[in-house]
Amino acid sequence: MNIAVAQSGGPTCAINASLVGVFSQALKTPEIDAVFGSINGIEGIIKDNLINLKTMIRTNEDIELLKQTPSTVLGSCRYKLPDPDEAGEVYEKIMSCLDKHDIKAFFYIGGNDSMDTVDKLSKYAEKNGYDIKIIGIPKTIDNDLCCTDHTPGFGSAAKYTATTVQEIIRDSLVYSIESVTIVEIMGRNAGWLTASTCVLRANGEAAPHLIYLPEAKFNAEKFLADVRREQAKHKAVIIAVSEGMELGDDEFRSGATDNFGHKYLSGVGKRLENLVRDKIGCKVRSIELNVMQRCSSHLGSKTDIDESVSIGAAGVRAALKGESGKMMAFRRISDVPYVVDIVSVPAGDVANKEKMFPAEWINADGTDVNENAYKYFLPLIQGEMNIEKRNGLPAHFKIREEILRG
Amino acid sequence: MNIAVAQSGGPTCAINASLVGVFSQALKTPEIDAVFGSINGIEGIIKDNLINLKTMIRTNEDIELLKQTPSTVLGSCRYKLPDPDEAGEVYEKIMSCLDKHDIKAFFYIGGNDSMDTVDKLSKYAEKNGYDIKIIGIPKTIDNDLCCTDHTPGFGSAAKYTATTVQEIIRDSLVYSIESVTIVEIMGRNAGWLTASTCVLRANGEAAPHLIYLPEAKFNAEKFLADVRREQAKHKAVIIAVSEGMELGDDEFRSGATDNFGHKYLSGVGKRLENLVRDKIGCKVRSIELNVMQRCSSHLGSKTDIDESVSIGAAGVRAALKGESGKMMAFRRISDVPYVVDIVSVPAGDVANKEKMFPAEWINADGTDVNENAYKYFLPLIQGEMNIEKRNGLPAHFKIREEILRG
Repeated sequence: MNIAVAQSGGPTCAINASLVGVFSQALKTPEIDAVFGSINGIEGIIKDNLINLKTMIRTNEDIELLKQTPSTVLGSCRYKLPDPDEAGEVYEKIMSCLDKHDIKAFFYIGGNDSMDTVDKLSKYAEKNGYDIKIIGIPKTIDNDLCCTDHTPGFGSAAKYTATTVQEIIRDSLVYSIESVTIVEIMGRNAGWLTASTCVLRANGEAAPHLIYLPEAKFNAEKFLADVRREQAKHKAVIIAVSEGMELGDDEFRSGATDNFGHKYLSGVGKRLENLVRDKIGCKVRSIELNVMQRCSSHLGSKTDIDESVSIGAAGVRAALKGESGKMMAFRRISDVPYVVDIVSVPAGDVANKEKMFPAEWINADGTDVNENAYKYFLPLIQGEMNIEKRNGLPAHFKIREEILRG
Repeated sequence: MNIAVAQSGGPTCAINASLVGVFSQALKTPEIDAVFGSINGIEGIIKDNLINLKTMIRTNEDIELLKQTPSTVLGSCRYKLPDPDEAGEVYEKIMSCLDKHDIKAFFYIGGNDSMDTVDKLSKYAEKNGYDIKIIGIPKTIDNDLCCTDHTPGFGSAAKYTATTVQEIIRDSLVYSIESVTIVEIMGRNAGWLTASTCVLRANGEAAPHLIYLPEAKFNAEKFLADVRREQAKHKAVIIAVSEGMELGDDEFRSGATDNFGHKYLSGVGKRLENLVRDKIGCKVRSIELNVMQRCSSHLGSKTDIDESVSIGAAGVRAALKGESGKMMAFRRISDVPYVVDIVSVPAGDVANKEKMFPAEWINADGTDVNENAYKYFLPLIQGEMNIEKRNGLPAHFKIREEILRG
């Protein structure tokens, strides 16, 4: 039998590590012959655009490079699988491609949209008598997937974000005049990544002095009062704010949406910057950490990357045991020492849902997170990748651009 | 005798390393007793706000932490010293403070504005019979100082920028649709930092496919033609552009200026993004690397940090030999093997001037740089700092906030 693997959704530092996990576990499994990579997510299966991964990943060095290379080496997609009643021909194309290549298990590394695909495909296969196991491997820097303690890719994003905010704190302290620095952090509608900046407390930082999450209601007047209160204590006030904050301004969200109906979010930091400038009048700047949050593998968390490999491998073992329609998930056993195990959960319980940051981890004032959050986040950013460098720059695994054109 | 040191201008990753160089060399010099740090640049001398650095830097670990801590541990200023004819009382305050503390040499770590201060102060001291040596230690991520091969802080900024652009390249390749990614890079009016992204060629990257520098004339029609030409070759076109580009749009520069009359620059990336969206209509995004370019010490270039220590130490030796009104400078002996020595140049030759990127290193088309640039930049980003981590984050040297309030 053969297996196939695909990567979907937005990039992270850990998606290729999960690909390594699937690939390496397959090599150890006598029942598995070829491992196919599907180019550009599920689209590669629909279009029969597969690559034999043994021709792509040839050496141990290739494996190490993949683990330190951000984004998705096989490309990605934002394709939403329609309901089988509406578009049965798409499902038949998929089953036909899998059948043609004797693929008995398909692993989809992605977020809640991809888990929708896993759920739909596995139900279709079962209903129509196809002997194919479909397993989801989670990933997202947003950490907003249900049924798992955290998501692969999140720990590295949190490590990048905290490291960078710490450097921005140093940068903000240079001048003797008062200033406000607003750092806009990703996470779509969930505040996990913004909240994770609380790990800086471990190194004695008082900043970020204010943390605003989408899970707490925002009020402009209160925000200005918060800032003024912190200015009385700190020359340089540092604010961490989620891109997904609702500022109560109708024009906040642009009209553009993606295929899943997600609105593109932007501009919260800039809007708050303008508010501070208009109403307080001090030196103020906003900084978007932008895509660097999701692709800065040079700051990968070893904990995250190692776990991402493990969860990919666990997916292969689950499929071999006959599981299907499941997403692999982390279950935390303890914070200190940090111990997790890997379980499987129904992909349908994860699909199209968002796990929000817990309200009980936010302080009453809505401007900070508490000790529970700190204990949760701190283990996820631990450990350094021993990044291989070439010419003073991280070495990346590269796939030929022509292959990704599909 | 005692000496004093101050830090000025915008942050870099190397200013504290030069402080270490001054401090460590002073410890080795029997003639020197106390080393005073001036809080917030020259303002600390004017206000007699000094700190005895031996009470601040106590251990070898402190020294190592300082070398890996970005920004200016003693604070900074943008104070422009007036002409002595206009404000002799300021000069007298400075001389009085230096005299009071038996300070016979003052080291000013900064850019071309600080070299103006070095030049004026040293001339004033000489003219008025004060026995005080004034030496400038260069720093700027912009690399735009005259009379030196390159500036401390630039190599680390270049290493950060190239590493990050390489990760953005991976990030941009995920989707099967065509896209354009515009990365806006600092450097004020000079294109050095933007041009330095050419080092990615060392690792086989074709990107950035287009590099636009302020030193080459910009034309919107030609820009769009350049982008379309690259789109025929690459699915994801990556463009590096300097913040200081003149786009031929009067509204490009905001009206705000700093004390030196420098205009605040911003928005080139966003403007080009809008241009591509309007005229080409493909997926397009712009990314500002923002202050991370100047404060990402976790990606410091060992070459840069080591050189920054050395040039600080060389400044102390020069003052002891009786030099004054000089800036310490690098002179490159060869590219491969990379060898530089340190010389002194008149600070007046550096003050208020900008060294532009050489026109002969830009290709005829104005969209790329040539082999000379590549050979120049590559040595400057070499070597990794062995960053000490605590709790998964870089450890920083911190000064109490109250001290910096001045």
